[in-house]
Parts: sequence; structure tokens; C-alpha cells
Amino acid sequence: MASRTPSPTADRAERTAAPDRGAAGERPRRRLSVDERREQLIAVALELFSRRPPEEVSIDDIAAAAGASRPLVYHYFPGKQALYEASLRRAGRELSARFEEPMEGPLSERLYRVMGRYLDFVQSHGPGFAALLRGGSVAASAGTSAVIDEVRRAAHDQILTHLAIPAPSPGLRLTVRAWIANAEITSLEWLAERSVPLEELQLHLVQEFVASLTLTAAREPALAAELASFFADERPDGPTGRLVQDLAGLFAVPGILDAVTALAAGPQTVGPVDEASAQATEGTAGAPAE
Amino acid sequence: MASRTPSPTADRAERTAAPDRGAAGERPRRRLSVDERREQLIAVALELFSRRPPEEVSIDDIAAAAGASRPLVYHYFPGKQALYEASLRRAGRELSARFEEPMEGPLSERLYRVMGRYLDFVQSHGPGFAALLRGGSVAASAGTSAVIDEVRRAAHDQILTHLAIPAPSPGLRLTVRAWIANAEITSLEWLAERSVPLEELQLHLVQEFVASLTLTAAREPALAAELASFFADERPDGPTGRLVQDLAGLFAVPGILDAVTALAAGPQTVGPVDEASAQATEGTAGAPAE
Repeated sequence: MASRTPSPTADRAERTAAPDRGAAGERPRRRLSVDERREQLIAVALELFSRRPPEEVSIDDIAAAAGASRPLVYHYFPGKQALYEASLRRAGRELSARFEEPMEGPLSERLYRVMGRYLDFVQSHGPGFAALLRGGSVAASAGTSAVIDEVRRAAHDQILTHLAIPAPSPGLRLTVRAWIANAEITSLEWLAERSVPLEELQLHLVQEFVASLTLTAAREPALAAELASFFADERPDGPTGRLVQDLAGLFAVPGILDAVTALAAGPQTVGPVDEASAQATEGTAGAPAE
Repeated sequence: MASRTPSPTADRAERTAAPDRGAAGERPRRRLSVDERREQLIAVALELFSRRPPEEVSIDDIAAAAGASRPLVYHYFPGKQALYEASLRRAGRELSARFEEPMEGPLSERLYRVMGRYLDFVQSHGPGFAALLRGGSVAASAGTSAVIDEVRRAAHDQILTHLAIPAPSPGLRLTVRAWIANAEITSLEWLAERSVPLEELQLHLVQEFVASLTLTAAREPALAAELASFFADERPDGPTGRLVQDLAGLFAVPGILDAVTALAAGPQTVGPVDEASAQATEGTAGAPAE
């Protein structure tokens, strides 16, 4: 993604002695326009900030990697924080662009593809931005918060666009935002420990979304009708189909089907031990089964 | 929780003229010991920081509310940040204590009680700490991050203790952490918009946990056996029972049962349109139903 200048190593050793060499060195190189140079510095900074936390990246590192002088970097950016925020804004735009997906095919498969691109981004850019997303980064500021909020909003809006539900309820919006937080924290945790294969995470996050949507629909009759057409469009070999099959498989585990059937039948079927408390709270029980 | 001194209003007007009056004023008042005074200042600061973001609370406000002088506050704390972090540590301890719950009764009911106490805390302390938890607070630091991490860890450990699963898998740990993030973001969103009743949020979060646990068990056979005994202990009028009943109710919505049944049957039952793609991926499909 970034346009990197070749081999900055030679420059690095001499950058103090010859501060302008990167910008006007001996090697033949087309002089960059003001805009190009600015974009190049951001790209180089993004590359470095993606791999290391901000406190471990210096203006000298960025200048060296860009084949530029320290004063030249300062000519474009007042300081490291400004460059950090510019690179974060670019990362945010790039990430938001990955959320875009054609409105075609089963919903869970669309989300699965988006999550593949998202997790790819996390893997390549996450290490440097993890501290920022977790909070407590030395580089956190109102500017970085605004970028993060913007990305979350883009994710939220994309999901609602794909759900294509007119006038989404507050409960549904909350479900979507909570799932985005879930995806964020799960991928950051994964980045730190890599304890499960990335593909498992990708599938799991999509299935968590389907489950959350189903739970919300179970509470909101207006959403239940939408859920029916959502399920009707799904394919058996897609994330939703596999989820349904896995859940069906759970019912084969001794005891689960019996327990769930008893719960579905409602409070009137409780055993003698719980009878008193069940009677006391019977009026507050949920909708009857069936 | 906080030991507040009565009516600091009179002190407030004169605090510049008589800086030591709060500590040694004319009103009869037992002199606080060094430890008591420190604890009192933290309690007062927590009270103020709970209601307003840190940038809107001054050392003068804290001194006035504590009936103390500004120099006295500085005698105990080097500055506002230190007092903020001390109050956050106390808030963290208080919050972690709310996670403790006897190991008795159905799991979802235990979690429901904990969530009631948690949401009560969010409601009373959240407004001031929301910016910190969302990231981008001016008061964010390594110290505040450590407190937040500590609370998240306490929540994680409590949940695993109650699940009582020997050697929890990485997948289960990830599920627990993701759900904690879900609870955190959902309650912060709720705080900003209060778009649904708090009791609905309490029930919803517990049911989300049950759903996430079930999804994880669907992928992990070792966990499935544990899930069976978890479901067996649940009661029809508890959060899990109501979830099962609501889901059962969903199947009455036209189209849902048919769609889910088709998905459960697996790739071999797909219609002619999808036959080719289904055959291509048949080998990667999940476990067959039943």
C-alpha cells in the first residue's frame, strides 16, 4: 500500500551529518511535489506506526525511511503527534474502505468477506495501533479518538445498510455497536495471543453477529419478520448454515435437548424443589413456548 | 460509600483567604488522621469525578467539597492527575467487589444479579468515567489503563470461577473477554442515549453471554458436556429459560422454522440454483444435523 523509497539504510547512518541529503542526495530521483511528498511521509509513517507503538518511532526513523531529512519532515508536520494522527487518519480511511461490500448474496457471507479484509488489516496494522485501541496509549488524543469513532461509525452504517431494515430500533443499533466492540476487542486479544487460527476468529465473529441479531429479533417482533427473510437467503455451507448445523449437533450431546425442552415449556413444568419460587415469579416469566 | 464532611459551602467562599481553615477551622470537628484525611479526599474526588469529566473538576472543587484547603490537598496529592488515578483505583476496587457472587443457583441468575450491581455502578459512576473508558480522555495514562485492565481481569476471573470449567480453552477465554467488552460498550452506549430500559439491558447482556457460551460450545466438544449441566441447572423463569422461550417463539414467525430446518439439513438439500457452489464446498461444511 505504501510507496516506500528503496534502502534508506545508507541515509540513516549519515542523517545527522548531511541533513538534506535525503531530499537532495546524489542518487537520481524525481523530485516529489509538495502533495506527493506529504503523502509519501504519511505512508512511511503509517508503515512504521503499524509495526511499533508510537513511542518507539522517532521523527528520525520516519525521515530515514522516507529518504528525507529531519528538517524536511518538520517542514510538513509540526511534530510526531501530527504525523501519527495523519497516518492514523489514513489507516482509518483504508480500514473503512474495507467495510464496503456489494449488496449481493447471503448477508452472513458478505460479513464473512468483510471480516476477512478487516482481520487482514488488523494483522498488518494492528500491532502498532493496538495500544491506541486498547486505551492508555501515550499518543491518544481528541484527534485519535475522532478517527477511531469515525471507523466505528463507518462499520455501524455499513452493517445497517446491508441489513436494509427501515428505521432500525434503538435495540438493534445497540446490538450492532456492541458487536463491533466485540469484533474489535476479540481481534486485539487475538493479536496479543494468537491463540486460535485467524479463520476460526473470522467465522466465529460472523456467527456471533448472527446470534446477536437473532437474540434481538427474539425480543423485537418487527425485527423477527426481517430475520425470516435473512435466514431464507442463507446457504447451508455459509456461516449461518454452519452455525445452525453446529447448534443442531449440540442437541445430540446427552442432556442438552432435555434441558432446553424443559426450559422452553416454561415455568409450569418445574420440579418440586423449585415449585415455590417458580410460582412466586410465574407472572414475570417470558413468552410461552411455541 | 463516601464519608463526606457536612456543608463545605461556607468554606468555599473563603478558601483563598483562609487556606488552612478546612483542616483547622472554627467549627468543632474531630481532626482527621493522615490516613482518614487521605481516604476522605479520595472519596470526595471519586464523587466529583463520577459525575463530571476530569477536565471539569478542579483541585479547588475537591478542596471545597472536602472542606479542606487547596494546600492541604496538595500536601496529600502532587496534583489532579494523582487524585484522579487514586479515585479511579478506588472505583475499580469497588466495581470489582460487585462482581463477587455466591456460587449458588443457576449460572445465568448469578450473572443477572452481578449485572444489576454493575449497571447500578455504571449509572452512578459512569458519567464521569465514560470518556476514559471510551478512550481519548485527557486523563488517560498508563496508571488509568492499569486500573481498567485490572477490573476487566477481575470480571474475567469471576466468570471463569463460576463456570467452574477445569482448564478453560483459549476459545472460551476469548469468548469471555469479548463478552466483557460487549457489556462495557453496551453500558457506555446506554449511558449516552438511555434508549432502552436498564432492566432490558441487564437481561439482554446475560442472554448474550448464554448465547456466546453456547456458540463456543458448539465448536468445542469438551465444552458441550459442561453446557449440558449448565442448562440442566437453569430455571424456566430465569434469563436462560426466557431466552429459550423467546427463541422458541421466533420459530412461530412464518418462514423461520422452514429456513432454519433447511440450513440444519446441510449442503445436500440446497436448491438447483446453488447446487454447483454447494457441491464445491460440501467437504468444508460443518457437522451434519442430529
